Amino acid sequence: MMVKRLNDDNDGKTKRATIKDIARETGVSVATVSYILNGKKSISDETKAKVNAAIAQLDYVPDSAARSLSTKDSLLIGIVIPQTEPGSRLMFENPFYSELFSAIEYETRLHGYHLFISGTGVDESYLYLARKRNLDGIIAIGVYPDEFYQEVKKSKIPLVLIDSYCGDNHCHNIRIDDSYGSYLAASYLLNRGHRDIAFFSGQLRNNGVMHKRLEGFEQAMKEQGLPVRKATVFEGNIDLENGCILARRLLDAKLPVTAVLAAADILAIGAMKGLSEAGLRIPDDISIIGFDDLQIIGYLNPGLTTIRQEIALKGKKAVDILVQNIKTPDLTKREEVLPLSVVERDSVKTLSKEAP
Amino acid sequence: MMVKRLNDDNDGKTKRATIKDIARETGVSVATVSYILNGKKSISDETKAKVNAAIAQLDYVPDSAARSLSTKDSLLIGIVIPQTEPGSRLMFENPFYSELFSAIEYETRLHGYHLFISGTGVDESYLYLARKRNLDGIIAIGVYPDEFYQEVKKSKIPLVLIDSYCGDNHCHNIRIDDSYGSYLAASYLLNRGHRDIAFFSGQLRNNGVMHKRLEGFEQAMKEQGLPVRKATVFEGNIDLENGCILARRLLDAKLPVTAVLAAADILAIGAMKGLSEAGLRIPDDISIIGFDDLQIIGYLNPGLTTIRQEIALKGKKAVDILVQNIKTPDLTKREEVLPLSVVERDSVKTLSKEAP
Repeated sequence: MMVKRLNDDNDGKTKRATIKDIARETGVSVATVSYILNGKKSISDETKAKVNAAIAQLDYVPDSAARSLSTKDSLLIGIVIPQTEPGSRLMFENPFYSELFSAIEYETRLHGYHLFISGTGVDESYLYLARKRNLDGIIAIGVYPDEFYQEVKKSKIPLVLIDSYCGDNHCHNIRIDDSYGSYLAASYLLNRGHRDIAFFSGQLRNNGVMHKRLEGFEQAMKEQGLPVRKATVFEGNIDLENGCILARRLLDAKLPVTAVLAAADILAIGAMKGLSEAGLRIPDDISIIGFDDLQIIGYLNPGLTTIRQEIALKGKKAVDILVQNIKTPDLTKREEVLPLSVVERDSVKTLSKEAP
Repeated sequence: MMVKRLNDDNDGKTKRATIKDIARETGVSVATVSYILNGKKSISDETKAKVNAAIAQLDYVPDSAARSLSTKDSLLIGIVIPQTEPGSRLMFENPFYSELFSAIEYETRLHGYHLFISGTGVDESYLYLARKRNLDGIIAIGVYPDEFYQEVKKSKIPLVLIDSYCGDNHCHNIRIDDSYGSYLAASYLLNRGHRDIAFFSGQLRNNGVMHKRLEGFEQAMKEQGLPVRKATVFEGNIDLENGCILARRLLDAKLPVTAVLAAADILAIGAMKGLSEAGLRIPDDISIIGFDDLQIIGYLNPGLTTIRQEIALKGKKAVDILVQNIKTPDLTKREEVLPLSVVERDSVKTLSKEAP
């Protein structure tokens, strides 16, 4: 048997060995080589050995594109991460997204899939991209225009949403009870005697996570007969700089606030900086509670008391359900609401111990 | 002209319109449709209009897999990010990687490519994956076993290295002068009267970034006639927890240290926590300087003085050079060493102003 490496082309690219090359070199049929590669039919050990030797010597690597064309799948999962605006960077400044992304990549790999990641350009539909790339499924984090969900539904590409309250019942959803989370945070402050509480929020959109968190805060306040005045709700983008800016706006407003409920840890970190710069000590002069429990939060000075959500578990659940749906196209709609808890550190002062 | 949407298959997947469907429905040749799609030949406006109408009505989306098989490219760029160990998660706990990744994704998109991201399993070669996926090019961050570089070289897939001192001259390299960076940091401390300085480091590997940073520190100390004793070099993994652990080990060692040079900001953040927990005030009781200038660093309390490297620029340069190399296979080897500077904040105390 004469087996040799295929020569390079002149253009510098290595010529790729195909199943046909292996069949030709070994004198067996293309179908037999394919059976051996896929382990689908029992083939004599002698033939297997011959073919495997040729695979090694010709340095054959299966081509995903060829596979994709015949099987109509790609083993690629797309992940959609919020951008500050279309055409801009992904929101990785917030470690929430990198922690979630890291978990999703890991789980995707364990299931034998790989991740395709792309933000969208200003004039590009993500779904067009998804169809062009034959994505087997999509995980979308956050809230998108209704058009996006409708397009995905039409395409029948399995979709799992993380942190979305998308009204359409056909999507799988992984999320937390955002309203309950800030209810917990507000209750924690109220139980320690705080009555004048400012709420630091990302952009408040209908059905968005931030809006739900505001509702939970309002609910807890209302149960104590306390009003939430518009002037105590401060809205900005969810990043460090805006946390700092909201703190300055709070100080400029000269409200008699004793505590801040920041609806995202990243806002709380920025706020702590803004408050410190103005000479306020945390928690002696003002208390603050966050939301997310980012890894870095425990390393701040002082450590931030916050609402913990299981970020990595969110990623794992999303991948598990997506892969199930890829394998079972008519999978019933799944919804998972993950647990929340208070993580107590050093950023909240007790004003009075009496129950409110 | 009768144009209609293709019906769904029974299996729930939408049947994909192909170029052939468009040709058949419009009565023009497949070649003509292809010319119109690629804008490569001038075709009459009438035919163009007819074909474009069919594209819209049949909801035709080009198939990347089909394109890849004929053109032998995939418009996919692979990104290799360090894992704590093979088969584990990507090192996104360190915002250095998420900031870099975010820049790379953005630049890749601007060039019309997309990102393929995957860590490697324990028994999997990245290169095998790269060839299976027809990756057009690879960006690898950090240092990998020599085998990896040899395999990529053999495959002729364009490769750009970030933060590698890989000896092989055939790779493009984007990095900083790591040794000079910690030389700058050490000089900053020395100029403020510090003589007893501890060095907090990631794992020290030959030709690794951390090893270079140690060399720069030793050089600056040596120039002042100061020895670097082994006992003052503390080595751990590059994460928050290890920063904290190294701080505890330093305190346990009861060395007369007045300052810490942390060879990564993430270590510095952990170290600040470990030192504070032991009751030390920064910078009154002990000074600390970091390395990287992560976005979050300015929001710590106190703000961390550090060595700034242009993380986003590293990503941009890597993508620029990779795309050039994809288009020009014989592109001369490129090396870019990006600038460094000291960013002064509040974590270093001046002991004496005299020049050392």
